[in-house]
Amino acid sequence: MTDTLNVAVAGYAFMGRIHTAGWAQAAKFFGTPAKVTHVIGRNRENAQAFADAFGIPNVLTDWRDAVADPDVHVVDVCTPGDSHVEIAIGALEAGKHVLCEKPLANSVQAAQRMVDAAEAARARGVRSMVGFSYRRTPALAYAKRLVDEGRIGDIRHIRAVYLQDWIADPDFPLVWRLDKGAAGSGALGDIGAHIIDLATFLTGHRLTGLTGLTETFVKRRPKLAETTGGLSAKGSTEYGDVTVDDAAAWVGRTDKGALATFEATRFAVGRKNAIRIELNGSKGSLAFDFERMNELEFFDFTQPAVENGFRRILVTEPEHPYVAAWWPPGHGLGYEHAFTHEVHDFVDAIVAGRDPEPSFADGLAVQRILDAVETSNGSWVTL
Amino acid sequence: MTDTLNVAVAGYAFMGRIHTAGWAQAAKFFGTPAKVTHVIGRNRENAQAFADAFGIPNVLTDWRDAVADPDVHVVDVCTPGDSHVEIAIGALEAGKHVLCEKPLANSVQAAQRMVDAAEAARARGVRSMVGFSYRRTPALAYAKRLVDEGRIGDIRHIRAVYLQDWIADPDFPLVWRLDKGAAGSGALGDIGAHIIDLATFLTGHRLTGLTGLTETFVKRRPKLAETTGGLSAKGSTEYGDVTVDDAAAWVGRTDKGALATFEATRFAVGRKNAIRIELNGSKGSLAFDFERMNELEFFDFTQPAVENGFRRILVTEPEHPYVAAWWPPGHGLGYEHAFTHEVHDFVDAIVAGRDPEPSFADGLAVQRILDAVETSNGSWVTL
Amino acid sequence: MTDTLNVAVAGYAFMGRIHTAGWAQAAKFFGTPAKVTHVIGRNRENAQAFADAFGIPNVLTDWRDAVADPDVHVVDVCTPGDSHVEIAIGALEAGKHVLCEKPLANSVQAAQRMVDAAEAARARGVRSMVGFSYRRTPALAYAKRLVDEGRIGDIRHIRAVYLQDWIADPDFPLVWRLDKGAAGSGALGDIGAHIIDLATFLTGHRLTGLTGLTETFVKRRPKLAETTGGLSAKGSTEYGDVTVDDAAAWVGRTDKGALATFEATRFAVGRKNAIRIELNGSKGSLAFDFERMNELEFFDFTQPAVENGFRRILVTEPEHPYVAAWWPPGHGLGYEHAFTHEVHDFVDAIVAGRDPEPSFADGLAVQRILDAVETSNGSWVTL
Amino acid sequence: MTDTLNVAVAGYAFMGRIHTAGWAQAAKFFGTPAKVTHVIGRNRENAQAFADAFGIPNVLTDWRDAVADPDVHVVDVCTPGDSHVEIAIGALEAGKHVLCEKPLANSVQAAQRMVDAAEAARARGVRSMVGFSYRRTPALAYAKRLVDEGRIGDIRHIRAVYLQDWIADPDFPLVWRLDKGAAGSGALGDIGAHIIDLATFLTGHRLTGLTGLTETFVKRRPKLAETTGGLSAKGSTEYGDVTVDDAAAWVGRTDKGALATFEATRFAVGRKNAIRIELNGSKGSLAFDFERMNELEFFDFTQPAVENGFRRILVTEPEHPYVAAWWPPGHGLGYEHAFTHEVHDFVDAIVAGRDPEPSFADGLAVQRILDAVETSNGSWVTL
Repeated sequence: MTDTLNVAVAGYAFMGRIHTAGWAQAAKFFGTPAKVTHVIGRNRENAQAFADAFGIPNVLTDWRDAVADPDVHVVDVCTPGDSHVEIAIGALEAGKHVLCEKPLANSVQAAQRMVDAAEAARARGVRSMVGFSYRRTPALAYAKRLVDEGRIGDIRHIRAVYLQDWIADPDFPLVWRLDKGAAGSGALGDIGAHIIDLATFLTGHRLTGLTGLTETFVKRRPKLAETTGGLSAKGSTEYGDVTVDDAAAWVGRTDKGALATFEATRFAVGRKNAIRIELNGSKGSLAFDFERMNELEFFDFTQPAVENGFRRILVTEPEHPYVAAWWPPGHGLGYEHAFTHEVHDFVDAIVAGRDPEPSFADGLAVQRILDAVETSNGSWVTL
Repeated sequence: MTDTLNVAVAGYAFMGRIHTAGWAQAAKFFGTPAKVTHVIGRNRENAQAFADAFGIPNVLTDWRDAVADPDVHVVDVCTPGDSHVEIAIGALEAGKHVLCEKPLANSVQAAQRMVDAAEAARARGVRSMVGFSYRRTPALAYAKRLVDEGRIGDIRHIRAVYLQDWIADPDFPLVWRLDKGAAGSGALGDIGAHIIDLATFLTGHRLTGLTGLTETFVKRRPKLAETTGGLSAKGSTEYGDVTVDDAAAWVGRTDKGALATFEATRFAVGRKNAIRIELNGSKGSLAFDFERMNELEFFDFTQPAVENGFRRILVTEPEHPYVAAWWPPGHGLGYEHAFTHEVHDFVDAIVAGRDPEPSFADGLAVQRILDAVETSNGSWVTL
Repeated sequence: MTDTLNVAVAGYAFMGRIHTAGWAQAAKFFGTPAKVTHVIGRNRENAQAFADAFGIPNVLTDWRDAVADPDVHVVDVCTPGDSHVEIAIGALEAGKHVLCEKPLANSVQAAQRMVDAAEAARARGVRSMVGFSYRRTPALAYAKRLVDEGRIGDIRHIRAVYLQDWIADPDFPLVWRLDKGAAGSGALGDIGAHIIDLATFLTGHRLTGLTGLTETFVKRRPKLAETTGGLSAKGSTEYGDVTVDDAAAWVGRTDKGALATFEATRFAVGRKNAIRIELNGSKGSLAFDFERMNELEFFDFTQPAVENGFRRILVTEPEHPYVAAWWPPGHGLGYEHAFTHEVHDFVDAIVAGRDPEPSFADGLAVQRILDAVETSNGSWVTL
Repeated sequence: MTDTLNVAVAGYAFMGRIHTAGWAQAAKFFGTPAKVTHVIGRNRENAQAFADAFGIPNVLTDWRDAVADPDVHVVDVCTPGDSHVEIAIGALEAGKHVLCEKPLANSVQAAQRMVDAAEAARARGVRSMVGFSYRRTPALAYAKRLVDEGRIGDIRHIRAVYLQDWIADPDFPLVWRLDKGAAGSGALGDIGAHIIDLATFLTGHRLTGLTGLTETFVKRRPKLAETTGGLSAKGSTEYGDVTVDDAAAWVGRTDKGALATFEATRFAVGRKNAIRIELNGSKGSLAFDFERMNELEFFDFTQPAVENGFRRILVTEPEHPYVAAWWPPGHGLGYEHAFTHEVHDFVDAIVAGRDPEPSFADGLAVQRILDAVETSNGSWVTL
């Protein structure tokens, strides 16, 4: 199959926008045989403006129309979490390949239904993937390669935090991400989900149990007046309840004997998008911070102590994952490149008849951990 | 004028590719009314392959055809330096707006002719700009704003180095950038030009004289067999002479009393694209390293010493130049974003009937300094 | 009281050595009216060699002789944890001021007895202090000052790890620090105790409950042949059981509403003495890493976002705690300076008739938390 | 010779104080057979107070008395530069070993006389050394070892700056370091001398010529009222002329083909003691910043590019120079430790009958370069 796949993107806000740009860049820089032909949005005017700017020929206001259209081959779900289950299952049943933003769903039950639909579709050659895009950041993809090559040895410590501060101001309003109905959970599902997935992806370890806490520091906030950007908004004078966590922290054990610690918060003042992951193994260590996303720190414990130290690898060499398609060494990539890599890999798997990763089952596994953290309240939860 | 400008890009290698991507992104993220309609390349097959990947409808093998085409409004010159003078002047005389990659030309004489042509064209409302793209890196654009706001005070020190290592291996072959005929000079013109322009842009100071040295560490290299990337290539078994500098270093004084030091090299092993600029003024300091391009370090000398220190500003806030069009705080941008900003600003000036910056005259000023460094050989050269 | 205090130091290994040097430096740089007049060690020959090198006039092989000597005013306990209770109580009862290395004791019960003795002695004007020396690292002492001044606001997150790797090699032998009898616990009591104390010191918050895990990665090791340095040793061919933890991690809540996470490990390959503490409050954040002990990172959330960022404060200004006694700005201090500051502050309190801090009661509070972590095993423990 | 050497220290300000502390620490931590028995200061009261605090038995107000005293074996010259020539030559002629602070003298002529005296004394077994203490910072001593082992290969670039800011405030008064008569030159001789010596020490290269500039940004300042610390002072209401440079910058070539750049300034606002040295060779690079004095960055160009990067070596391992005498890995050292190492190495050479390094001839070589920079004014000076 070398024909171009037609993609319908559901949603045109932060995620829809970055996915759409990613599809176009993938075609140019990776020769990915796919293009965005439809955008789906409930507000036709806004969706049309987006379609005009991004060169998308068709605008739909109901995802069912995309699913019913035989010219659509792929549905890319970029809507809030509460609508994932409906759109993704509808699309899969109609034989569309589905890329679904994370977290897969707002509950374990919904995620399980999506996995079932994905399994059924798979039997018919229909592919599905959950959008944990950070896996495709070159530095993290390269970290995974080092782990797989045994350079870290047996992993003893997984240490992952995701720190942001965009709601640290108590006057920041009640956007959908602070509403349990729409978002499922707060920092836990929004950003904690990423570090759970990354830890699994990088190490291949599976949490066997955990104990942890969640906290909501600011319990009432101004209601939303207007969304002004991906993570920015204006509030009204009325107040409402925050129904999700502001932060969560947990420790656990893995099936291969590692001790793992996690923390996700939107109250780490001064930290903007600090996904910090450190792995300590018997042969080496790796450390990463998304605020310096083009760097990976690697300590090779097999080297002589006298000349040893963490090396700051600029992950911009042509030998690094995805980088050869872009710029010379030292000419860094940005946040959105991972989305280009993601859709490229997704299409690559579709074309090759392989299952792309991370699968909906991987998304469900993350959901189970989120669920365990929410219910733990300081007690042990076996997974 | 709100119609879309048609752009012909001359060249489809490293620079042509990144410019073309920049034009497309500018339309999407900034609403820039322009699109690439023509690509010009001497090898039709390669140019056609590029046009297919990047969605460019027309392929030309002679820049004269673009200049003669009334449907072309802008010529974007991304060829090696020896052809700039011919193409740019031809395009300007034909009434096309011209964006020309740096360095403006391979000699002061050629650059002067281009400035003359630009001045003549300007009288007819035809705009021109030289492509010192790094000015549009958000951290550097923000640095400029801080200087303009007086936050640094009177500048005493300008300290700029541009460090790369892509030819440190003596077996790296004789690519066009190592050939004086094609490139004009070596590290000096290729990367030294950038730090000269950035120092001028950031400070508004003008060098009044300088003294410096150039050096060629590896004097013979394998001839080129094949170009494999923006800055990578394979060599043959035959050898040839290196006719450009490998490195240059100079110190100078400015019209406003600063002491300035500069160094450009392709032999700083381990440094990939380290554009490091530090300014020290009477009220503060700024420090930047392109290898961490989303960060700017700022020291505000007016704060109490006890709690003072360089702050690492993540230049990813919506208030920072260009950033509001992209992603939330902490979600970094990459190397190529500056090109998107560059073409956006260029078109913005054309539409508004203003002269864009940096002008060809700015490019000539850089060329004069490159010339002075080349001829200094340790003696004082008054500018 | 302006006469010089005579100090008997019990122990001459790593801690005894650094304390003894600290007493001499305090006299020189702070004018502290005290000098080490006795060293106590079971091996007379080794103790004598140490006394000769460090200029100590008297050598004793039994601490009881120091306690009985009316010329001794202070006993500085630098022996392994299992002997603290006996020596400290003996000294306090004999009317000697006592500085006791951390952890205070190897059990809550022993620590409680020491607190009782300290309380009783206090009534007679005899002072006691536990040696959490890191409190006197200038950067941490300054961090405390910023918290006290309200610069961080209400603290929401306490994030503390202490990472070392000196036993990551499974062939590293069974030194006393790996023996439960002598050391009480492993990484938990040795280094975890420090971050517990520092978190308390810096924030003034008290943990109200916690849940956590401990782990021993390497369960059998070569028996000790020879100690070769503060944390280095050679093993024999025989093996024995490791009876302490290699690592511990826990999360908790504080009495003032913060979420706190802690981790202590000796298996973080590549991390040598990484005490990393970050506090996030409503008005600012602080971050510290002992591997860069002369720096403190401070984010002031009250500043405009556009120019904001963590500032790297070089804590070497004369206005910083303890620094005026030493060198000019930028001329960093080392690990041992905190011990000089510690004994200086201790004597200062004795002379002034004040109780020095941290008290034995503070040491007991740390011990209670260590105990809770050891018994938690993933369940909630209320403190 | 195993008897203890008696040392007379001339001067008790910043340098005298740190030398005296260094002598005591050397005895304790390195078993160095030497002790400070005399301090020399023109103000008897101040000198006596210093002697009391530091435990020095004898106070002299004239250096001639020390030179005449048969019980003095070593004279350690810590006075301003203008008195070095007289004291050092006097001491050498009297058969005293001499350690002389840098810069050796305030002129090439004076330095030459000192070298002659040192040569004459050497024939009689009397040793001399100039106090470029930074050579004994473990990270720099280790850098030297890596260069000597060939790990950097042929050195192409030497890049050295020494940045301070303690006189950036135009109201800072005219201390002796700003007076040409006492100090010889400004930033150039005070701190530029250090980076000249370090570059020579680390690389073994010799500058064959240079071109450079000096600058005095603030030409008049308040006269000195009171010295308040090593580099701090209070001014009066009267003004006087600054007679030395505030900053200097130069570029040169070395006898082994490297391009070298240097800059020394006291106007780099926010930089407190930033001695930054980077070497780029054919096989690797080294980078150092004194503000992070326990770290050395090393890039090994012989490693595969994909996993390569500058490694941050914490120079705190027992295998590193001088470190075994101190603390475990990660427990950093401070500024003054280099002085302990310096006097230790000095005595070690005396005891062994070897010439210590750096010699007075090395000091003269530095003086010649300082002289060349001062006279260059943008013209080439052959060395």
